[in-house]
Amino acid sequence: MSKEFKVTPWEVTGDIDYDKVVKDFGVQIIDKKLLERIKKHTGELHPTLRRNLFFAHRDLNWILDEYEKGNKFFLYTGRGPSGNTHLGHLFPWFLTKWLQDKFDVKLFFQMTDDEKFLTNSKLDIETTKHFAYENALDVIALGFNPKKTKIYSDYDNAKTFYYHATRVAKKITFSTAKATFGFGNDTNVGQIFYTSMQAVPAFLESVEQGKNIPCLIPHAIDQDPHFRVARDVMPKLGYYKPASVQGMFMPGLVEGGKMSASKPDSAIFTTDDLKTAKKKVMSAFTGGQASIEEQRKKGGNSEICSVFSYFKFIFEENDAKLEKRQKACKEGKILCGECKKDLSERVVKFLEKHQEKREKAKDVLDKFLVKD
Amino acid sequence: MSKEFKVTPWEVTGDIDYDKVVKDFGVQIIDKKLLERIKKHTGELHPTLRRNLFFAHRDLNWILDEYEKGNKFFLYTGRGPSGNTHLGHLFPWFLTKWLQDKFDVKLFFQMTDDEKFLTNSKLDIETTKHFAYENALDVIALGFNPKKTKIYSDYDNAKTFYYHATRVAKKITFSTAKATFGFGNDTNVGQIFYTSMQAVPAFLESVEQGKNIPCLIPHAIDQDPHFRVARDVMPKLGYYKPASVQGMFMPGLVEGGKMSASKPDSAIFTTDDLKTAKKKVMSAFTGGQASIEEQRKKGGNSEICSVFSYFKFIFEENDAKLEKRQKACKEGKILCGECKKDLSERVVKFLEKHQEKREKAKDVLDKFLVKD
Repeated sequence: MSKEFKVTPWEVTGDIDYDKVVKDFGVQIIDKKLLERIKKHTGELHPTLRRNLFFAHRDLNWILDEYEKGNKFFLYTGRGPSGNTHLGHLFPWFLTKWLQDKFDVKLFFQMTDDEKFLTNSKLDIETTKHFAYENALDVIALGFNPKKTKIYSDYDNAKTFYYHATRVAKKITFSTAKATFGFGNDTNVGQIFYTSMQAVPAFLESVEQGKNIPCLIPHAIDQDPHFRVARDVMPKLGYYKPASVQGMFMPGLVEGGKMSASKPDSAIFTTDDLKTAKKKVMSAFTGGQASIEEQRKKGGNSEICSVFSYFKFIFEENDAKLEKRQKACKEGKILCGECKKDLSERVVKFLEKHQEKREKAKDVLDKFLVKD
Repeated sequence: MSKEFKVTPWEVTGDIDYDKVVKDFGVQIIDKKLLERIKKHTGELHPTLRRNLFFAHRDLNWILDEYEKGNKFFLYTGRGPSGNTHLGHLFPWFLTKWLQDKFDVKLFFQMTDDEKFLTNSKLDIETTKHFAYENALDVIALGFNPKKTKIYSDYDNAKTFYYHATRVAKKITFSTAKATFGFGNDTNVGQIFYTSMQAVPAFLESVEQGKNIPCLIPHAIDQDPHFRVARDVMPKLGYYKPASVQGMFMPGLVEGGKMSASKPDSAIFTTDDLKTAKKKVMSAFTGGQASIEEQRKKGGNSEICSVFSYFKFIFEENDAKLEKRQKACKEGKILCGECKKDLSERVVKFLEKHQEKREKAKDVLDKFLVKD
């Protein structure tokens, strides 16, 4: 049953065995005790934490130690702008916004336009920069605090970023890069350098404030290798190691794998028109049976159902209701068509509002971008 | 007698066998026919060309072909600002200025402050940037045409340079970088990327003008590997391969090797006070005999004499006078003390004027620097 899988910053394929990833990467599981500790500060837990969708971390206890001592952290996350934003990209940003609101902290958001150009043979720079702009509108539309949120582009902020990236790069040997990312003779020299650029937002705030400030990075677990390298280098430059909260991938609407910008039907993009979005949901892969009769008799399989995962990852915040839906599915009391209809309504409602806010974001974009 | 030697962009040691370098690098010798062709345009030849101190090239005939068709080239050269400027650094800039004046062309001068930081464990960024500023004053003091000369710093112009460097980097595999520069597991990832930054000025003018413009790079031959890589990549990006004129190293004032910023006595720095400069010349390594009597009898050896090389490289533009001095030395008619005295007078005279112009350069520096 289990297929081979691969989780690298540039490629995520197959059925991911998260236990194996945790072991291979050497990250920590977010356990009940840690969740309780977070809850002490936030009053409640974000659904993605309660549901173990953000399931792993590095040094989150230390972040809370410092926070409790009055040493506030800042958040750092980002996006590789290789295409339009889809719901799978938004997924970690929802948690990021929740963390910003609950802890009242700054967020630095990095558009890694250089990375996408360097690692994708089909993209030119202007295209990745265009998508960086498009994706930034989605970030802003989610309602991040405009007074506490800054968006960087590696290209537009290269004057600052290249400066600090060379400080990082000087401490990373090819040997380390090769071992961490599996680079070989065919890898281009830009990609080899790139991880240094991704390290910069982890300490830039410390540079600018002139004192060490803890950094917490919410991200999908495939990015861990970059931050592993950053954690190695930061203390050599006199900064804290960045901490992280690591998430799973939101499954695609088609069978298997994560959502992919290169397979439009596998994901709902924030720029999809409502009709298209609805159509994608209505033809999504489910855990249903071949016929209504069979479904009523045997029940569906929510474990493999992309529609159920959409509820779980984003569209049903109420645990009791989510459980109720799962139970009804298992008992054959609800049919795939009904779930799809429910989901499509929520997706359409979300998109409608998001697209409105996305339009308005164009007017305030400049306030979020950092001028070098 | 002949020691092992090494010529790489980061290390030049030993007695250089230039014939072997020409063969290893695969460059062309500047022959009489080519010199005549240059002379057709310039009326006379610069002493460093007449004396084969700039002795090798790539595609210089093509540069002249294009020039004759009305397609003017631009000049590009640079400096790795790891310390103050010494006369050995000025040496190729004299030819560069002559080329600018004779052909009335633009010059783009690159301060590779990032390279020096990345390849020198003892330098921090602010120090290399400080030297970039100091070195730029020397460039300006030489009298380059302010209307046709621009000075870039890789750090200060990173917004433009990193953008285009990633275009280059995407076309250079680690395998190529390894084969060209001898990189290994210990090389830092910044140094591996760096050659892409050095390629940028070879085509930036073509980008900005929106049409292909030939580029001629006067440089010391150790930099050829960088431009070999650039020549490989440029056509893949739609630009001309840069051409080059390649020079020897001006010997140091102490026995063997090139001048080195890390050995202050081996070189006269433009910032040396006149007394120090004079003292360095007066205690320079010569080809003289142990005693005056012996010198009168056997004559000196100008071939290994650093004082003679200073006349040859910079301080005696008149070929007949240079030959006369060499003859007198061989015949024991002139003593080392006399040559040193003559040279020190010329050096002091040069420095006095240069330092005055260097001071004035501070007022116009901004006009030469490019703002991103």
